[in-house]
Amino acid sequence: MTDLNTLGEIGLIDRIRQTIPKPTHKETIQGIGDDAAVFDWGDDFGLFCTDMLVEGIHFDLTYVPLKHLGYKAVTFAVSDIAAMNGLPIQITVSIGLSSRFTVEAIDELYAGIRAACKAYNIDLVGGDTTSSRSGLIISVSALGKVPKEAITYRDKAQVNDILCVTGDLGAAYMGLQLLEREKQVFMADSGMQPNLSEERTYLVQRQLRPEARTDIVHELRDLGVVPTAMIDVSDGLASELLHLCRQSKLGAIIFDENIPIDDQTYLAADEFNISPITAALNGGEDYELLFTVRPQAFEKLATNSRITAIGYISSDSKYVGLSTKAGQLTPIKAQGWQGIFSLT
Amino acid sequence: MTDLNTLGEIGLIDRIRQTIPKPTHKETIQGIGDDAAVFDWGDDFGLFCTDMLVEGIHFDLTYVPLKHLGYKAVTFAVSDIAAMNGLPIQITVSIGLSSRFTVEAIDELYAGIRAACKAYNIDLVGGDTTSSRSGLIISVSALGKVPKEAITYRDKAQVNDILCVTGDLGAAYMGLQLLEREKQVFMADSGMQPNLSEERTYLVQRQLRPEARTDIVHELRDLGVVPTAMIDVSDGLASELLHLCRQSKLGAIIFDENIPIDDQTYLAADEFNISPITAALNGGEDYELLFTVRPQAFEKLATNSRITAIGYISSDSKYVGLSTKAGQLTPIKAQGWQGIFSLT
Repeated sequence: MTDLNTLGEIGLIDRIRQTIPKPTHKETIQGIGDDAAVFDWGDDFGLFCTDMLVEGIHFDLTYVPLKHLGYKAVTFAVSDIAAMNGLPIQITVSIGLSSRFTVEAIDELYAGIRAACKAYNIDLVGGDTTSSRSGLIISVSALGKVPKEAITYRDKAQVNDILCVTGDLGAAYMGLQLLEREKQVFMADSGMQPNLSEERTYLVQRQLRPEARTDIVHELRDLGVVPTAMIDVSDGLASELLHLCRQSKLGAIIFDENIPIDDQTYLAADEFNISPITAALNGGEDYELLFTVRPQAFEKLATNSRITAIGYISSDSKYVGLSTKAGQLTPIKAQGWQGIFSLT
Repeated sequence: MTDLNTLGEIGLIDRIRQTIPKPTHKETIQGIGDDAAVFDWGDDFGLFCTDMLVEGIHFDLTYVPLKHLGYKAVTFAVSDIAAMNGLPIQITVSIGLSSRFTVEAIDELYAGIRAACKAYNIDLVGGDTTSSRSGLIISVSALGKVPKEAITYRDKAQVNDILCVTGDLGAAYMGLQLLEREKQVFMADSGMQPNLSEERTYLVQRQLRPEARTDIVHELRDLGVVPTAMIDVSDGLASELLHLCRQSKLGAIIFDENIPIDDQTYLAADEFNISPITAALNGGEDYELLFTVRPQAFEKLATNSRITAIGYISSDSKYVGLSTKAGQLTPIKAQGWQGIFSLT
């Protein structure tokens, strides 16, 4: 008998993936291996994905309001659809509940789910509600759509493509550090009130209620730009960049001074003695989009304040590097998350 | 604050359903309220559904082999697709695992999932694998397809339709009783070996490894028969019949002597001092199909040994009754399962 920990999360996923047969249906365009599965939906491609969130692993209800959690669970799935350059249409939400939850708590959770469905324009079309022996489990599956000519995979980046990222990175991670610290203070002295001043609002919001970038999907369509490759930044820039490069069989160079980082992230990183670049590279949960475009297509995006060019794709498939302002070049390694390992 | 138990499972589902907005996408043909959601997939309709299984609620690993569990989890979702008269194409499987599971245990679980994908001809296209603080969680979502003219809802039964059921009922419930009894014996004396003689094989198999009736979907297509209404029998015949009648706004009479019950079910029911009719009506987990057809269409099915006519649809929407051999008529009430409440 082999302990799961000896295999490790990557080992377990690889082991499972190797045993799964290749798709056989003509409708299946893409099975496991991208942000969402792809199926042929007449004029369009359909997108299909799922995410599971488990209490104590993915969220801590001592500081996560249930309404935000409901919103965030939907965001996870929508972000996977957006990463294929698609827009969501339907979701199902299954909930496992232990008896400690009140009716009002469930109302809060669903208020967040409904708010997300409204914000992302999704029909909530089904789900399961079941008991659970301990804690809360949320499983969201999503169905989306993308015009065939706009589908964007992870593995189609080309040499000299511009690497772009939306929004800013590392804020959700710093928000988590702040919330965890307040929790420790509160547990040491329950009379203490949380000390989350206004200059921290953005960080906490990024952690508790991230937004999937469907706005960028709309914008790319309006501009007539189709990225060559795209992935959502759920596990930190480093891990996602390595996925994109490995699957495209190419390398990349990114420039640390170009990585978009919010002022609040800089301040908090300083306070916690964390490098803001490390927070951006390995922090995770930003739910931004990392994508590549041909250099000529980038011209249409260059003035967009929500999109930042951070580097380029190179032909050296063995090297994904970070170039510092001082001119140093260091290889990028993934750290990723513990306990979260996605098959897709 | 209101305890979840005061609301009850039906109350909770009703509460959640009432707050969910009506679908707004033109692609969404049917949202919550049937076995699966329906979306417009060009020439066909697409079907989308999800199921969550939680250890200690839906299964007991002291007697459920992981391979069978993997198979059964897929069967649940496929049965929902079959209940819409559709066939499955893709599934995603998310797993939450606590550290007590070994690598070999996960291999077993996936062996069952793969076997089911092969049996039902499904592409496994994605999923999540995550840690869990306690026990095993399995969430399966499925995507299926049905020709538009063959889609079968719950709410389109017509007066004088023949009520049909596939296979036989109550066996899975009696299988559960046998397994639970053996568990008690084993717990009292761990030296005892399970006493599941061969004449019990069918009951145990029906509980541990039920089959979704995609064979019937194929057969109905071959015969050119489209049921007027259909539902899968997951919570017992009584509960499903009441759903079908309530949603069709009609009544029904079924005849106890017509309900298909296997000889092994009769024997075990006698031993456990349970009425076999009660096992069929309220036992659950049979994963057969309950459907209605126009009387003239039934002629094509009358000689089919896998399909049994058990009654008819009546115009009295206030009455769903069981007619006994002795000529008594009693109203049917649902008991259903504790702890499992589906939004769909």
